[in-house]
Amino acid sequence: MKRILTDFISKFKKFDENEIAAIVENTQIESFKKGALILKEGNICNKCYFVLKGCVRQFQLVNGEEKTTAFFIEGQAAVLYSSYLENSPSKYYLSCVEDCILTTGTREQEKELHKKYPKLEYLVHTLMPQDYAKAQERISLLNNYNPEERYLILMETQAELLNRVPLHQIASYIGVTPESFSRIRKRILKKEKST
Amino acid sequence: MKRILTDFISKFKKFDENEIAAIVENTQIESFKKGALILKEGNICNKCYFVLKGCVRQFQLVNGEEKTTAFFIEGQAAVLYSSYLENSPSKYYLSCVEDCILTTGTREQEKELHKKYPKLEYLVHTLMPQDYAKAQERISLLNNYNPEERYLILMETQAELLNRVPLHQIASYIGVTPESFSRIRKRILKKEKST
Repeated sequence: MKRILTDFISKFKKFDENEIAAIVENTQIESFKKGALILKEGNICNKCYFVLKGCVRQFQLVNGEEKTTAFFIEGQAAVLYSSYLENSPSKYYLSCVEDCILTTGTREQEKELHKKYPKLEYLVHTLMPQDYAKAQERISLLNNYNPEERYLILMETQAELLNRVPLHQIASYIGVTPESFSRIRKRILKKEKST
Repeated sequence: MKRILTDFISKFKKFDENEIAAIVENTQIESFKKGALILKEGNICNKCYFVLKGCVRQFQLVNGEEKTTAFFIEGQAAVLYSSYLENSPSKYYLSCVEDCILTTGTREQEKELHKKYPKLEYLVHTLMPQDYAKAQERISLLNNYNPEERYLILMETQAELLNRVPLHQIASYIGVTPESFSRIRKRILKKEKST
């Protein structure tokens, strides 16, 4: 599992071999089985889960129904920031859509590590705006387009995700019931065939 | 205008007086009139606009209709990260809902400033996760609740915003037409009266 973190950090040219080895040595890496719940509603998200391999789903139970808010894949931090920053109970669950390998660090561990290896802050500075950019695009997707348009945009921009995630989770990710989603997919398929 | 930035940075205990004065001296601050367009669709968002005073609206034109994606108020960065990070044309507009005072720095100016005053990175590290947290909550609001619930949650969590922004913009912010929004408000008022 250390290899995968080494490979990830090596992509950023900022670090020399010794630094990478030291960072990897001091970072907690855990593996989780598909379906594992990493965080439950009501608990505090006091760790930053960074996805090295796999896919983590954020969902919320609303009137007993699972509503999928986000998917986090390789290179993304699965963190529920409201809970993480304010030490408040999370409204959301985090669960593993696939077998996952994640770095798992508390805020204190993260601070300690940044103090020891200031270049790590550079990494956070590089990655967080990318995650935030994805969140901004997701807001636009949900607010500015109808469900069919949302699915078409997802097919264009996140085709890989669609292949990795069960259909009923994609349905709730674009804000429709599985039945509506099935109708949308049929409609699109029909259009594709007729053109 | 410098005073307002001085006051803002002073809230963070990390900086001494001289540092604050130097940072303020080296930061570009601009004022914009209510209604001013800061960024147009198709242009690159190559500046980070940080709101010291006022409210900036992010919107998108979809089939000729303005869809409001976000509002940024005091203490928030109005940045369209996809465009900013990738130097790509923005899909969105940024406009001033009120008279605004904003810091306006390019990525290069920002980098220069961070190099000179490394503690500024601390500020970014403190503020960006807060903005990201708000984006995560907005995703949940849009994806997991119906329009009436969205408005009720907004009344609870962002009451101030609702007082500062025209109703038709709030309507598109929760993803409904002005007509539907008017019906929602009437329904809520009726319920409130009958309890």
